[in-house]
Parts: sequence; structure tokens; C-alpha cells
Amino acid sequence: MKLKELGEFGLIDRIKSGVTAPDGMTGIGDDCAVIPQGDGIDLLVSTDMLVEGIHFILDDIKPYRLGWKSAAVNLSDIAAMGGLPVATFLSFALPESLDSKWTDEFFKGYNDISGRYHCTLLGGDTTASSDKVCISVTILGKCVSGKALLRSGAREGDKICVTGYLGDAGAGLKVILEGARRNSDAQALIAMHYQPIPRIEEGLKLAVAEGVHSMIDISDGIGSDLRHVLRASRKGAVVNVNKLPLSDELLRTCRRNGWDPLELAISGGEDYELLFTADPDAEIDIPHTVIGEITDTGRLDWLGTDRDFGGYHHF
Amino acid sequence: MKLKELGEFGLIDRIKSGVTAPDGMTGIGDDCAVIPQGDGIDLLVSTDMLVEGIHFILDDIKPYRLGWKSAAVNLSDIAAMGGLPVATFLSFALPESLDSKWTDEFFKGYNDISGRYHCTLLGGDTTASSDKVCISVTILGKCVSGKALLRSGAREGDKICVTGYLGDAGAGLKVILEGARRNSDAQALIAMHYQPIPRIEEGLKLAVAEGVHSMIDISDGIGSDLRHVLRASRKGAVVNVNKLPLSDELLRTCRRNGWDPLELAISGGEDYELLFTADPDAEIDIPHTVIGEITDTGRLDWLGTDRDFGGYHHF
Repeated sequence: MKLKELGEFGLIDRIKSGVTAPDGMTGIGDDCAVIPQGDGIDLLVSTDMLVEGIHFILDDIKPYRLGWKSAAVNLSDIAAMGGLPVATFLSFALPESLDSKWTDEFFKGYNDISGRYHCTLLGGDTTASSDKVCISVTILGKCVSGKALLRSGAREGDKICVTGYLGDAGAGLKVILEGARRNSDAQALIAMHYQPIPRIEEGLKLAVAEGVHSMIDISDGIGSDLRHVLRASRKGAVVNVNKLPLSDELLRTCRRNGWDPLELAISGGEDYELLFTADPDAEIDIPHTVIGEITDTGRLDWLGTDRDFGGYHHF
Repeated sequence: MKLKELGEFGLIDRIKSGVTAPDGMTGIGDDCAVIPQGDGIDLLVSTDMLVEGIHFILDDIKPYRLGWKSAAVNLSDIAAMGGLPVATFLSFALPESLDSKWTDEFFKGYNDISGRYHCTLLGGDTTASSDKVCISVTILGKCVSGKALLRSGAREGDKICVTGYLGDAGAGLKVILEGARRNSDAQALIAMHYQPIPRIEEGLKLAVAEGVHSMIDISDGIGSDLRHVLRASRKGAVVNVNKLPLSDELLRTCRRNGWDPLELAISGGEDYELLFTADPDAEIDIPHTVIGEITDTGRLDWLGTDRDFGGYHHF
């Protein structure tokens, strides 16, 4: 079967079936792997790859922003566990025709966003590429032993919450890909696509809050990412599409271009906001929006629309 | 300046100048980063990227061997510190036209060599590639706190030792690239190129042996890798080229094709043997060959030849 038919998650299931995480470790299937250390600390590890032509267009993105984004998407995986970032490792394949000014700017962006969280670049690999730029970042973080917020913890009756706005990054990408007019709204959306802010502080607060049961970062759109939570938790959900937090920039840009804001909010990727579930009466000390509820149906139902929404898949 | 002029190690120096490893951590510049944990254990981390067209030719290498090699080159970085491998993380970009049989075979090879050391695949990222296959592996290992064998520990008077044979993998690659006849010698050399055996057991023994001061794995040829040790240790060395361990397969294949075995032994990459330095009277309990001595000259001198030997550089 071709990978295109198997699909990204089909491939991951296939890989997963060939390995068993040792006792006490959480392996493939969450935002990070969780590896207990001997001193009351759990090590968190995640890795993400960004490929030219798939994740970014080299001629459009400034190297500063590409560096920022390469670090930010990994920081977001640590945020999604409620962890504290510690260090990153960066490998890249670069065409030798690139200029060292390009790499200087790349690392300026990379170190600017990493430095906010005192997260240090501790190693990597550099290699020539015959053609495309390929970037792989691995991040290490830590959390108090047993306190990582997994995808698998959602309980029936939990409220489903998200931080920030949904769909902005997806709309920014659409502006780029479709060559839409880059007015100030569009610029703001592009910035959300290229320079996402990982929700580290929010994740840390949620990890110590009472009654928070599960968490994931929204990298592929809630249509896909909420399904990961439901699958890992063996639950269902109802989401009210009228409750989805949409920014004014998104709404105006969609109106101007005839785009569907709901489609972008649900299926547009790379918002890097947090989606978490918590007791209905849990007090949540960070800005968030309640968009629905966990059910025991095993189904994902969308309220306020007749349509079925999926998420972005790589294959 | 173009990356081609700056060179791989120039680029690494430039990246390194922008970051500072926190107190107690060893960052960029050794085979692994060393991160002290709270329980008498140091965490070791390394990452390597393999790019189609640069590190392998997709039509020539069997997926089983590519999986093996992807894990093995990372395991070798843990071996180079005298550490024990714990877990790996694998990211890859794959053209969606590839078949799932290909990935199945890839993971068979990957897990076969990892499994020898009870090292588990704990996570990763899969993404589409518009074109080439790109593979990035990050490995975690551990060692007793403060006992990692660094590149920087070489002392004047140390004997310079290597495990195994030098040049076999480089000769194997040359057979492939030049389309030389693939008799049984050539097949053996190709196997060394595609399926290197990481020297994990040897590394662990050297880490607890008395009088071993520095270590590195030979990924770019001793001409380059010994220079890393000398630079990190601020020392010089004399290497006797007549002492370099050369296999019969290498010597016969070089004779048949008119190749220079010394050039391959010194500048051919990817042997993944260990190079270490130790007190002249240290008792070393593993098979090895003494090839020279650490000096205070700051220079690398080659005995038995008039030529100057470099190593492989990626840019």
C-alpha cells in the first residue's frame, strides 16, 4: 500500500505496533514521550520536522521567522504536556548555495523564542542538501513526576477548552498560498502562521491546576487534534461551532476573500494553541474559551452546523 | 559568505558562538550533549540527519539497511561517550509514492540494531516530502555522572588507539559510487558502509577502564576526527600511517581497482569505530590498535608518508 493511501496516522500506528515502550515510559502517541528519571522528575521529549515545500516556502519566509517557527513548534509540544522546556537539538540539511547571513538570521529567530523560556540549543547536525531545506528539532523538557497532561485523560462531562483564537495561522497560510492581498489583517494572520507563540506559561499553570484532565496542542486543527484526545481517552465529544473563538482579523479577511472561517478554525493547522479538558466546575486561571463537552458516545458531533469537519493529514 | 566557503565546522562555530550551555552541561562540540540529572546520572543526547543523495542513494540501499544505518550512526554517538543507549526519536520526510512495505523493512532494520542494546523508539514525526527522503534521529543515553568520555580529555604522551579496521566503509561507498565490481570483498565493504556495528560494549568498557582520557567515534575519517580531539584538548599528535589497521578486504579491493588504502583509511568516512586516547601503560581490555601518540606540538604529523591528509567535510 502506498503511503498516500495508508495515511500519516496509519503509518504511525504501523510503526507503533513494532515497538513497546519500557515500563513506566510513555512512547509514541502523545505530544511528548515521558521518561521517568530517578529524582522525581519526568523527562519530556518531542521532535518535529519542517520540510521546504511542505511546511514553508523558502522564498516567502524570512530566515528569522523560519528559525523562530522551528523552535516554537517544538516548544509547543512541551507546553502541551504542561512541561518546562530545557534544551533543543537542531539538525538541518541546507543547500550550500545559501549564505551565512541566512543562517545567522535563522539562529537569531531560533534563539529569540527559545531564550524566552531559557531553553538552550545544546547540539545538532548540519549537512549539505542537494536541493531542499529540511529542518528537524528535538526538544527536551521536564515536569514533576507523573504530572504530565496526556491526551488520554479526558473524562465524560469535561468541558473542552482552547486558548487564544483558532484559524488565524491557517488563514495566514491561505493568504500566502493564494496570493491574497496583504493588508494589515492579512499581515497579522501571516505572523501567526510564521511566528506562533508557544503557550508555555499557560501549559505550566494548567499542569498544576485542579481538575484539568487532558491536553494537546493544536497543530493540525481541532478537527484532527480533538480526535486524538477522544481516541486516546476512548470518549466522544460535542463541539458547538458557534462558540469557536475567531479573531476579528480572521473574520474580516474571510469576508473579503469569500473564505469560510469555520473551515479554517476547525481544519486549518498550526495555531499552536492548547486544547484541554477539565471538570465543568474547575477554575481555570488563564484566558480560554469553552467550546464543547466530552461525552461517552465515542463520536465527535458538531453543534450548529450540518457539515463534517476533518483535519489536515500529511499523507 | 556562502555556506560552501564557510564550511561545516565554520558554520558550527558560528552557531555555537550564539549560545551558552548552562552551568554543568556540555553543549555543542562533542559527540553528545551531557545534561546532569539529579540522581547521579548524566543524560547523553545526540542527533544525526541522513539525506538522500548526500548520505545514501535510495535506489541502491535496501530499506532494511537504511533503517539499520539510521539507528546505528546515532548509537555510535552514545558509544563515543562510553554511554548506554536508552531511547531514540525518529523524524522523516518521505515521498508519498513510497510503499508501506518500504517503511516496514526500514523499521525492521532500525529495530533490529536498536533492540540489541534494548534501545526503544519512543517518538518521532512523519511528514510528506515533495522529493527526497530525509531522516533525522535523536538518541538519548546515559552514563554515570561525570564519567562521559569527552573529546577534550587527551593528555600529552597518551597513546592513540582505534577499534576495528579503518577505511572499509569508505571503500564500500567508493564501490557503489564508481560502480566497481561487487565481488565478495566488495560486498563485505558495502556491508560495513550500510550496516555499521556501533561499538557500544567497547565504549562502556572504556568508560570504566583506568587511564582512558578522551574518545570520539570515527564518522568523517581519522584525519578529521582526530583533529576534533586535538582541537578540543589543545594538543598535537603523531600518527604512524604504517600502523593503521587495514582489512584484507580493503587491501585486495584497493589493489584490484588501483585505489589508495591510506587515503580511504584516513579520509574515508563512516567507519563508526572508536578513537580513544589513554595513558601509555593503561591496560585496555578490548581489541584495538595503537596508531600514534598525543604530543604538545598543536600539530597533527603523519609518520611514514609525505602527504597531508584531511577528512570529509559536508560543505
